[in-house]
Amino acid sequence: MDRQQVVLHMNPGMGDNSYANNSIIQNKVMRKAKPIVEESIVRLYTIIPIRCFKVADLGCSSGPNALQLVSNVIDIVDCSSSNLNLKPPVFQFFLNDLFGNDFNSIFKSLPQFLESLEENKGHKFDPCFINATPGTFYRRLFPNDSLHFVHSSFSLHWLSQAPKELVNKKNIHLTSTSPPAMHRAYREQFQKDFKVFLKLRSQEVVGGGGMVLTLFGRDKTCDIRTAWTIIGTILNDMVLEVHTQVYYINSFFLCIFLFC
Amino acid sequence: MDRQQVVLHMNPGMGDNSYANNSIIQNKVMRKAKPIVEESIVRLYTIIPIRCFKVADLGCSSGPNALQLVSNVIDIVDCSSSNLNLKPPVFQFFLNDLFGNDFNSIFKSLPQFLESLEENKGHKFDPCFINATPGTFYRRLFPNDSLHFVHSSFSLHWLSQAPKELVNKKNIHLTSTSPPAMHRAYREQFQKDFKVFLKLRSQEVVGGGGMVLTLFGRDKTCDIRTAWTIIGTILNDMVLEVHTQVYYINSFFLCIFLFC
Repeated sequence: MDRQQVVLHMNPGMGDNSYANNSIIQNKVMRKAKPIVEESIVRLYTIIPIRCFKVADLGCSSGPNALQLVSNVIDIVDCSSSNLNLKPPVFQFFLNDLFGNDFNSIFKSLPQFLESLEENKGHKFDPCFINATPGTFYRRLFPNDSLHFVHSSFSLHWLSQAPKELVNKKNIHLTSTSPPAMHRAYREQFQKDFKVFLKLRSQEVVGGGGMVLTLFGRDKTCDIRTAWTIIGTILNDMVLEVHTQVYYINSFFLCIFLFC
Repeated sequence: MDRQQVVLHMNPGMGDNSYANNSIIQNKVMRKAKPIVEESIVRLYTIIPIRCFKVADLGCSSGPNALQLVSNVIDIVDCSSSNLNLKPPVFQFFLNDLFGNDFNSIFKSLPQFLESLEENKGHKFDPCFINATPGTFYRRLFPNDSLHFVHSSFSLHWLSQAPKELVNKKNIHLTSTSPPAMHRAYREQFQKDFKVFLKLRSQEVVGGGGMVLTLFGRDKTCDIRTAWTIIGTILNDMVLEVHTQVYYINSFFLCIFLFC
């Protein structure tokens, strides 16, 4: 098992530096993509008879965003059910992230979340079953044909691993000044990972099911400048000041790819 | 939602005082009950055709015991499959405990656990899907007819709440010197809770499915002396020494019942 599956995670808890308190952009992305999620769910809900609506959120992380999809899906299906004069289904959600994710934080916020759901939806609301499914989404996570809808927001830019056999001369990840071989290596790793992801999900989602993936991309004409570029620059400065061994910085690459 | 669903949990982590390092008795109980689990699983596995074997462990807690059932079930089904010359099924496990349980610890131990499973079982081993399902088992946790086997070990002595309208004159839980009204109140609460538990599980388990429950009981003729009795005595001593307000100790009862 790759070591990064175990050690990689967003900052846990609810402190100032936690992911929970530093994920406004991710929340904005989810809100922006909501109409697409809505379109996909309404389409599948009208063609598949569903008594228990099974949904997976891959790369849910922790903090308030982790339950955002649950809220959105319930609202959308509730509204569709009213329009179609159908009894709303029962919901079973599977929140997925790597093994090191802070699921405890999500679970501690669940009682209040479920209570307010019940208050808002009233007696017509059947139980909503929320589970956590830890593990990398580059491996199987669910049995065959066991999901109706898969969602992943702002997560698929995390590769299964950084491309191998690269030598970092300046940057810990891909930038516009990176050599063509590095661009090619990252693109190939992304293509390989994305193919694996789609193949695995095609086994897990029922025929006629839906999937909405929101990816962190970039404009081809723009320079690739993110917080990681700044961290890379700082690490290189530390090498120059002999605080960090050249070997480590030369062999360290982020497993992130922003497709264009 | 009852407050105890949120705040009650075993000591998290892996420290000296953690549940993980203080649950030898619970492990012994599971090992002792293994032949009964085996009998139940072999019976249902021979009468129901199962492609994906769905199992819930209710009150799994954290630490090494949390994955003990997973190991046991896989071993039992693996052996049965060989005997019956069947392809082993895929497994989907749901580990349940209250919202405050330390699921993070379980998840951090999963990569190594899954790796050693794969090593032991070799290529014939299909993926094993492990989920967490937080919440009280006195409410619905799973959709209708979604489980083949339910297991709960050393957990059902935890009531949904302590009986109401009791006045504690000496003990924070039931002892042999407790008044008859207190005995009756605890017994009635247990009966009520256990009925609810069975009713909910009957909705969640498929027809022909199995269930093994191991309860912490007591011999009717024996005195009820546990660690809780000692803690109760200490609390009462603190009241006498005016460290604790009489009101609080008089209104505090443990939600534990050892049936006989």
